[in-house]
Amino acid sequence: MSRNFTSDNVTPASAAVMAAVLAANEGPAPSYGGDVHSARLAALAAQLFETEVAVFPVTTGTAANALALAQLTPGYGTVLCYESAHVATDECGAPEFFMGGGKLTGLPATDGKIRAEQVEAVVALADSMGVHHVKPAALSLTQATEWGTVYALEEVRALSATARRHGLRVHMDGARFANALVHLGCSPAAATWRSGVDVLSLGATKNGALCAEAVVFFDPDLARDFDRRRKRAGHLWSKLRFLSAQLVAYLEDDLWLRNAAQANAMASTLARGLAALPGVRLLQSVDANEVFAALPERCAAALEQAGFGFYRWPGCAVADDETAIRLVTSYETEACDVEALLEAARGADRA
Amino acid sequence: MSRNFTSDNVTPASAAVMAAVLAANEGPAPSYGGDVHSARLAALAAQLFETEVAVFPVTTGTAANALALAQLTPGYGTVLCYESAHVATDECGAPEFFMGGGKLTGLPATDGKIRAEQVEAVVALADSMGVHHVKPAALSLTQATEWGTVYALEEVRALSATARRHGLRVHMDGARFANALVHLGCSPAAATWRSGVDVLSLGATKNGALCAEAVVFFDPDLARDFDRRRKRAGHLWSKLRFLSAQLVAYLEDDLWLRNAAQANAMASTLARGLAALPGVRLLQSVDANEVFAALPERCAAALEQAGFGFYRWPGCAVADDETAIRLVTSYETEACDVEALLEAARGADRA
Amino acid sequence: MSRNFTSDNVTPASAAVMAAVLAANEGPAPSYGGDVHSARLAALAAQLFETEVAVFPVTTGTAANALALAQLTPGYGTVLCYESAHVATDECGAPEFFMGGGKLTGLPATDGKIRAEQVEAVVALADSMGVHHVKPAALSLTQATEWGTVYALEEVRALSATARRHGLRVHMDGARFANALVHLGCSPAAATWRSGVDVLSLGATKNGALCAEAVVFFDPDLARDFDRRRKRAGHLWSKLRFLSAQLVAYLEDDLWLRNAAQANAMASTLARGLAALPGVRLLQSVDANEVFAALPERCAAALEQAGFGFYRWPGCAVADDETAIRLVTSYETEACDVEALLEAARGADRA
Amino acid sequence: MSRNFTSDNVTPASAAVMAAVLAANEGPAPSYGGDVHSARLAALAAQLFETEVAVFPVTTGTAANALALAQLTPGYGTVLCYESAHVATDECGAPEFFMGGGKLTGLPATDGKIRAEQVEAVVALADSMGVHHVKPAALSLTQATEWGTVYALEEVRALSATARRHGLRVHMDGARFANALVHLGCSPAAATWRSGVDVLSLGATKNGALCAEAVVFFDPDLARDFDRRRKRAGHLWSKLRFLSAQLVAYLEDDLWLRNAAQANAMASTLARGLAALPGVRLLQSVDANEVFAALPERCAAALEQAGFGFYRWPGCAVADDETAIRLVTSYETEACDVEALLEAARGADRA
Repeated sequence: MSRNFTSDNVTPASAAVMAAVLAANEGPAPSYGGDVHSARLAALAAQLFETEVAVFPVTTGTAANALALAQLTPGYGTVLCYESAHVATDECGAPEFFMGGGKLTGLPATDGKIRAEQVEAVVALADSMGVHHVKPAALSLTQATEWGTVYALEEVRALSATARRHGLRVHMDGARFANALVHLGCSPAAATWRSGVDVLSLGATKNGALCAEAVVFFDPDLARDFDRRRKRAGHLWSKLRFLSAQLVAYLEDDLWLRNAAQANAMASTLARGLAALPGVRLLQSVDANEVFAALPERCAAALEQAGFGFYRWPGCAVADDETAIRLVTSYETEACDVEALLEAARGADRA
Repeated sequence: MSRNFTSDNVTPASAAVMAAVLAANEGPAPSYGGDVHSARLAALAAQLFETEVAVFPVTTGTAANALALAQLTPGYGTVLCYESAHVATDECGAPEFFMGGGKLTGLPATDGKIRAEQVEAVVALADSMGVHHVKPAALSLTQATEWGTVYALEEVRALSATARRHGLRVHMDGARFANALVHLGCSPAAATWRSGVDVLSLGATKNGALCAEAVVFFDPDLARDFDRRRKRAGHLWSKLRFLSAQLVAYLEDDLWLRNAAQANAMASTLARGLAALPGVRLLQSVDANEVFAALPERCAAALEQAGFGFYRWPGCAVADDETAIRLVTSYETEACDVEALLEAARGADRA
Repeated sequence: MSRNFTSDNVTPASAAVMAAVLAANEGPAPSYGGDVHSARLAALAAQLFETEVAVFPVTTGTAANALALAQLTPGYGTVLCYESAHVATDECGAPEFFMGGGKLTGLPATDGKIRAEQVEAVVALADSMGVHHVKPAALSLTQATEWGTVYALEEVRALSATARRHGLRVHMDGARFANALVHLGCSPAAATWRSGVDVLSLGATKNGALCAEAVVFFDPDLARDFDRRRKRAGHLWSKLRFLSAQLVAYLEDDLWLRNAAQANAMASTLARGLAALPGVRLLQSVDANEVFAALPERCAAALEQAGFGFYRWPGCAVADDETAIRLVTSYETEACDVEALLEAARGADRA
Repeated sequence: MSRNFTSDNVTPASAAVMAAVLAANEGPAPSYGGDVHSARLAALAAQLFETEVAVFPVTTGTAANALALAQLTPGYGTVLCYESAHVATDECGAPEFFMGGGKLTGLPATDGKIRAEQVEAVVALADSMGVHHVKPAALSLTQATEWGTVYALEEVRALSATARRHGLRVHMDGARFANALVHLGCSPAAATWRSGVDVLSLGATKNGALCAEAVVFFDPDLARDFDRRRKRAGHLWSKLRFLSAQLVAYLEDDLWLRNAAQANAMASTLARGLAALPGVRLLQSVDANEVFAALPERCAAALEQAGFGFYRWPGCAVADDETAIRLVTSYETEACDVEALLEAARGADRA
């Protein structure tokens, strides 16, 4: 049983992923991706996404995002994204570094979802300023968002259509892509390239892997020389089999979807339970595995007292007597964990 | 039994390393290095190197080298190294990328070992050219070298003394540091900071890990903000326990030294056996786990025919009727593997 | 007579500056700054700023700003500035490029002047996020601001004291520094280092030069290796005499102050005249040589019709029936030019 | 009369160039290239090169070279050039900086001219190393070379044909392009795009301008977004008229060719005179305006004693009793200057 709701990156690896790593530890194998696991991953990704893809495993979400954005955006370009997107605030400037000094143009959004009109406005401004302004080159959408919400397919389509009209490429930061997919109930293809996404950062670490993410290009031509880009960033493993094997296990037998479904269900239960408490309100729609709630400070303190881990969250519009917190569930979260937290919250309320 | 002498990066992970990864897969753990394995690694490294160190696990040797060199060298600087050093020829420009456009100044060396006089000459030239020339900022020594040789301690000391006199920092690319250490028979401290080394890229992947290297600073002040540098390169794992645990297992109970000793011994046996064959000669001193030999093309072809894996090696000074090859042993190489290869070579000779 | 109020960069060079360039065209002269004009500039700058300075002439304001900020800020750092500062919006990402991927953190300000509390807030947020966030490393103040306002000395001092307390360096973008100085009526020293400024981008092009700006460090130690940084950016002229001579002429005999005084006086007259018209209001305090005004669209159109050049200005809070415009005066603007514009505006009003 | 043979960058500007700058100083003019001089330059360049070109004035040769190479070469790429080319040794890493960490691959050449076979060899090596090696992306030829020699047209054609076959673009560093052109006696078109050159750094500073170079693209499509690249490097002048006017004057009325012809003729006279002296020999063919000679140290010292300026030159293969020197002539050099130097040399010989 776990009282840790701080993040989904505190989880261990899923048993099936760990078993795959162990199984890959057999005798010598060609290095740098010449192994059978990497081949298997390529085939599996093509099958899952129902199209030819170019898939590049890397170690971290920061690497996946920064490499992908650098592939789309020249140094004199800019990436349009939500102003508090992970790429903009939590990666210590990795995208800017990989782009060679490119920029991110942050757009406000109360629910983490930017809108096509905002993209239009930035493009119009840039056009009016000509050479003095960086060139809008790509759009980065986080799916599920940093606020635990999920873009509807029509929202993605509207954004990518606008982007395409102005010559921008579309990147999806899918650190929690499986959680979004489960919420949407659609195919991986529908959630991505069929909705106009050019490149996906496919997260696995938060949802069951040890250290595995992948950059997936839906147009292999767009991946030209990406292998050199990855290499010179120090992100090409010599024993790549250990990375590819994780992703194979993650995608096979629907492990990723089962894990995400559990995390989402637990977040949903948690959200319902919290919302039913007096003085507690949800700050965002709970579409994936994150719950943002405002509650009395007394209640937040009581939960901490009871040993529950979570973050007080800055940047939320709450009343003076409210405390905003973030609770994250994972594939490891069980119904009893949620119930225990709710019980503690109820106790604080009664106290 | 293995006939694969292509590289030590085709090996699986050592059993003890894999066991440590498995053991680390227990329940939730703080992310980004707040875990017990990372703490254990820090303590272990300090103990092994007999001084306070700042140790940063990363995934690849390219990342370790490029990050370390970028910490030492500004964009308008240059790193002096052997002209065919791994950092100069096999990392797709990673050091230059991480340094923000800094340079590498390659120095010729028939045995892979550069000399203090060469450093003096480069510094003198740079001084004479002033602002028009990049500033010599660091020296990078590969230990063991790309030619399987090992710098003697006095050689390292002479180089680092020269470097220090001119304000250059000293980096050691220790992708095969354990192999060098076993050859030198000295302490890790003697091989590094006591001989003037400022930063070590400590390799583990080739010698028993899945994907683990570490940047070790012997002066923690020199590591200032290195954590941010690592983060923005996408090299800070969220589940860092899985990386730190590998390094702990690698360094504990002398696993690294035992593995390297086996690899070195096998290379030594292989070298002796080859040198005894008519028409075969060693091209370099076999100090670590690599054997460079010139042999009749007929013999090289026969070995390939027999299923042995190795590389024909460019850039060696050999006669027209000789073929230069590289054979790499590892901790997995066994006496019977070496004997099988020698037997096949003898057969080719008799044929 | 000129009807061009679009910008102060449409002006020709002052006669004295051009004469100095001509005078420098005598016989051979040492290249790269070994000439007498460059020596004269160094001495003059020290005298004017009443302290030892390191002064580096460059060609453009973008170069001056980007080089200066790169000297203060590592790639994993960020520069705090007004969100629509020139460095943030009009230099096509030059600072980010020169910093090697560093960021700018834009702060809102209705009058272009950021406040110490905003700096405190950014630093506190960064501290709370640790390694995941870029490191606040420098503060950039535009003086005079992009809105034609001027920071009071106490405002500069409060900002620089806050910056210093948190380890940030202070840069001043002085593209229109002379205009600010004339407004403040203080010494160059008081306006800069005595108020906590570490580095000044001293503009001259807009105020009488052909193509001359200078980066001025008030602590020469801070300028370490800056000469190499300038060289590798392609900003070290071989015939530096032609650049230094411009700056000498600019700073000698108070030319810079006389030119700025004329521009400021004309802006002031223009502002008063416009404000007196019905339906016209000033949008910003007119401290330097820029006038931002809201006027009836009919009036704006009439001015254009009459051949006056100026920009309609986006991003101003105006009513639906108002048009925001920017009018810039220069050392070339004469009283009759201003009067002609005002007369045309009055005519439009009467029509 | 001048005794300064140190470099052609110690010269003042040609009278016609200075007159053009003065003439451009008339009233307000559109900034950033909207002026008539910039338009005139574009037309003139197209006419001179007999094709549609995209021409971008910049301030220094370093800027021209670094910007041009960055346009041709991604960060994971490399530029093939002579190992002691100006771009490789005298620009403080500018090309690497502008490319975002790309490399230069230096090729040996006793006369400064690289050969097609060398390009083939580098490409073959890179191909064999795949993703671990930087990608050969461009070839940079210095014309005239750093040793005062000039590539014959068939040499340029052979190199560019090889480059093209392997997907490399061809850049020409024409810091002394006019000198080469005069030597070749061909049209600017024949010397460049008709011989396979994609981009030219057209120098003017050394040959009569104050501070003017230009990047000339012979395929305007290849110049895509180059204007943003220039802007973010701080190399877009606001008062561009003053730069464009220099180049117009330089190219009009054959000033560039007349100036170069004078410089070349003086170098030729100087070379013949020196070669006739006992103990003196020319180290390179004197094709342009540089003379590399080996002479007795006694003679070199006597010339210095007599007040002549020149550089002792490192890296030349000379005997122990010889001193290698470089003498540079310019459009300002007169027959009497050359005669005076020869006379002094003869005197030293007799002494």
